[in-house]
Amino acid sequence: MVCTVKIYEKPKLEKPVLIEGLPGIGFVANIAALHLIRELNAKIFAEIHSSAFQDLAVTTEKGDVRPPFNELYYYKGKGEERDLIILYGITQALTSYGQYELCGKILDLAEELGCRYIITMGGIRKEGKVEMPKLYFAAANIESAGDALSLGAEIFGGNIFGLAGLLVALGKLRGFGGFSLLAETPGYYPDAKAARAVLEAVCRYLKLKIDLARLDITVEATRKILEDYGILRREDKEKREEPGESWLI
Amino acid sequence: MVCTVKIYEKPKLEKPVLIEGLPGIGFVANIAALHLIRELNAKIFAEIHSSAFQDLAVTTEKGDVRPPFNELYYYKGKGEERDLIILYGITQALTSYGQYELCGKILDLAEELGCRYIITMGGIRKEGKVEMPKLYFAAANIESAGDALSLGAEIFGGNIFGLAGLLVALGKLRGFGGFSLLAETPGYYPDAKAARAVLEAVCRYLKLKIDLARLDITVEATRKILEDYGILRREDKEKREEPGESWLI
Amino acid sequence: MVCTVKIYEKPKLEKPVLIEGLPGIGFVANIAALHLIRELNAKIFAEIHSSAFQDLAVTTEKGDVRPPFNELYYYKGKGEERDLIILYGITQALTSYGQYELCGKILDLAEELGCRYIITMGGIRKEGKVEMPKLYFAAANIESAGDALSLGAEIFGGNIFGLAGLLVALGKLRGFGGFSLLAETPGYYPDAKAARAVLEAVCRYLKLKIDLARLDITVEATRKILEDYGILRREDKEKREEPGESWLI
Amino acid sequence: MVCTVKIYEKPKLEKPVLIEGLPGIGFVANIAALHLIRELNAKIFAEIHSSAFQDLAVTTEKGDVRPPFNELYYYKGKGEERDLIILYGITQALTSYGQYELCGKILDLAEELGCRYIITMGGIRKEGKVEMPKLYFAAANIESAGDALSLGAEIFGGNIFGLAGLLVALGKLRGFGGFSLLAETPGYYPDAKAARAVLEAVCRYLKLKIDLARLDITVEATRKILEDYGILRREDKEKREEPGESWLI
Repeated sequence: MVCTVKIYEKPKLEKPVLIEGLPGIGFVANIAALHLIRELNAKIFAEIHSSAFQDLAVTTEKGDVRPPFNELYYYKGKGEERDLIILYGITQALTSYGQYELCGKILDLAEELGCRYIITMGGIRKEGKVEMPKLYFAAANIESAGDALSLGAEIFGGNIFGLAGLLVALGKLRGFGGFSLLAETPGYYPDAKAARAVLEAVCRYLKLKIDLARLDITVEATRKILEDYGILRREDKEKREEPGESWLI
Repeated sequence: MVCTVKIYEKPKLEKPVLIEGLPGIGFVANIAALHLIRELNAKIFAEIHSSAFQDLAVTTEKGDVRPPFNELYYYKGKGEERDLIILYGITQALTSYGQYELCGKILDLAEELGCRYIITMGGIRKEGKVEMPKLYFAAANIESAGDALSLGAEIFGGNIFGLAGLLVALGKLRGFGGFSLLAETPGYYPDAKAARAVLEAVCRYLKLKIDLARLDITVEATRKILEDYGILRREDKEKREEPGESWLI
Repeated sequence: MVCTVKIYEKPKLEKPVLIEGLPGIGFVANIAALHLIRELNAKIFAEIHSSAFQDLAVTTEKGDVRPPFNELYYYKGKGEERDLIILYGITQALTSYGQYELCGKILDLAEELGCRYIITMGGIRKEGKVEMPKLYFAAANIESAGDALSLGAEIFGGNIFGLAGLLVALGKLRGFGGFSLLAETPGYYPDAKAARAVLEAVCRYLKLKIDLARLDITVEATRKILEDYGILRREDKEKREEPGESWLI
Repeated sequence: MVCTVKIYEKPKLEKPVLIEGLPGIGFVANIAALHLIRELNAKIFAEIHSSAFQDLAVTTEKGDVRPPFNELYYYKGKGEERDLIILYGITQALTSYGQYELCGKILDLAEELGCRYIITMGGIRKEGKVEMPKLYFAAANIESAGDALSLGAEIFGGNIFGLAGLLVALGKLRGFGGFSLLAETPGYYPDAKAARAVLEAVCRYLKLKIDLARLDITVEATRKILEDYGILRREDKEKREEPGESWLI
């Protein structure tokens, strides 16, 4: 198996932007992506499984069973809205090798669908209470940096862990533009405030009008999914194999 | 090597049900599968070895030596009994990658033999003494959920670790039906009570009449095999590499 | 790279016996193999490197550098002596996958050279002082068990870690005969007494007349090599990734 | 991906010497290589990425993003100066397998460019203050040992961790000459004194006249890069998976 992509449909899209939404620090991207999918009624077109995900089955409230997954959704923009590919999932890969492979598979498929621009989201851990989370970015090139600057984000100087960093960095090697947008967060729980800050900026860039009033419902849904999957309950017990900070929390 | 399947015989079976019986929480499946093999006089037809099993040799009372193994047995049902493929072994794979690969090999062979239905068994850890272990399930689809409900099991909401979860979940992606049936157990030893509860329900589904009186002998045999292999003695010292609960205990 | 075998010469041998001599509990096999090589003036014919060995260079007293290695030597027996292939090295592989692969490569080559019989050596940890180390064995089949019994060894009931167990167990799957011969040892240092007990018995089986008077010199040489390589100095700090006892010590 | 080499240019070089400069004990090689690149105005011609590097993106002061990397530079010597290939990077691979593979890729490319000689640099940890770091070496063959001796280095008896050891040792198997040159260092920070000692000797061998006055600036730059990448801040928290000392610190 290693990393397999099951494609249900190959959507015809106009220069779609890839939005990454996997669990990470403050679960910022995870919340934002789920909210986009729900509000835009985005359609699933592919499912990804990897033998670098955990060796277990996830269950749902109805007693259904499935392996740990990543999913790809698409949205065809109306009017000036951008077409989107949204990456959502309940896990990242557990090994560095698995992360690079997962990244490669997603970039392959995105490229095939005409995507040349990637936005990843995430959190920057900040001690204490965060009233108004500031936004930071790192970008694939000067144009993309300009895009991020125009959204009010400042330059970030540090490492960006997991697929939030790797997708933009490996995408860049293949000629993708894009940026990673990060909000300050205490990081230890699904952070609605940070997710709202990032999502609001991303929607401005994508010219999407999304109702953020229901974001709290999405935060609750994210918390529930992650608890079911055991990520939230395990947060302080976990240690990843590789050095460096984990994409978890 | 990685994961190799040595096939001694390709039995002709009528829609066989795959019964998983590897070591896991409370050793429920391990006991149940061994008891089925003994009582039904099921015949071994394949042996599986993997470089993701431990790098050691197991020895028997007679001084024989063999690598860690999984085995596949078959049973041709009489009358209304279902044909069976029984997966038995003394270990699961040590890495997530190894678990997915092992799972894939077993599903390949099961599919080739006409199997379209999988039953895995396991334990749900419960603090304190368990007088009458309740049964829970998670299923591959609605029909299979109906099967499990008819056996008196309730919906399980949580993760199912190891091959007990993965076989049903990855099987589902290939169109297999089936369910995972879990009994409450303290989990720290081969649990006869939990094994009896699960096995009794599984036999009802398979229309098998098995003598459960001798189950205690099988529990003792399982304990002996696992102690020889070092799993039981090591139970509290072990930590697996991947996050999440281990399939061990 | 993974696991590469560099062959200098393909010796013509008559039904050679493969003698395993890698570091393990009490360094019994390591000492015994080195002593055989020295006393028989056995000739190196192949060198094995693996990316599952440590990522470092070993140095010698003369300032030479080489990667961690396994080596294969041969000896053409005189008179009734058996032809030998001797496996010597300063390490085993660090991962279970690496161990299985290493084992497979050695069995491939041994088979090609006409070998059908494997003897591995090792220690069984015993608390306290061991005056007269008893010998234990586990064997690939009944004939081989008979061979070991005739040397005064008793049946061993337990796991045999690392290549000492794996070579006999995986060899058995390919039709090799042979046994693993184990001596009691405290295990925490290169144990001359245990090595002598095992080597004396093995030489009896192979009809080899070896001078054991110089064994202490070989023990000292082994200690020196292992200290240079860092195995002895690191013994109590190390923990291997896989569950179960390590082949180290 | 695993380990990919992106080649920008294939320089025509005259028997170039490969100089290794990855992070390691005391960051001796890392500082020395960066200083060579800066002072010689060496030109980048290839970039290496590996899925055995960390799964994260590195950012620069300008908000640029890139994956963890190794880079290859070349310098065409003037007059009696030797042509050089300089290996620089911010990380080594995280697994033993990744290290061997990285090493193989670099040797492939070096060989293709006519290189037959490798110099690696590093530190030997020494307790307490090191006033005048002594130099030690280990070499691929007698001629190379002579080269190192002529620079005033003494024979080193111990293991050389990471690519500093592996490049010379695996290179030797392919017929490369060369040596590893090591300076005493407390090891816990980028050590200007040790780097200066090693670099001065290496430049003598290569007949390069390098301004060492600005070395402190390079040390500061190295410290900054490593802090950005998180290596220096994490130094005491890290533990690598493989036994033995890590190449880190």
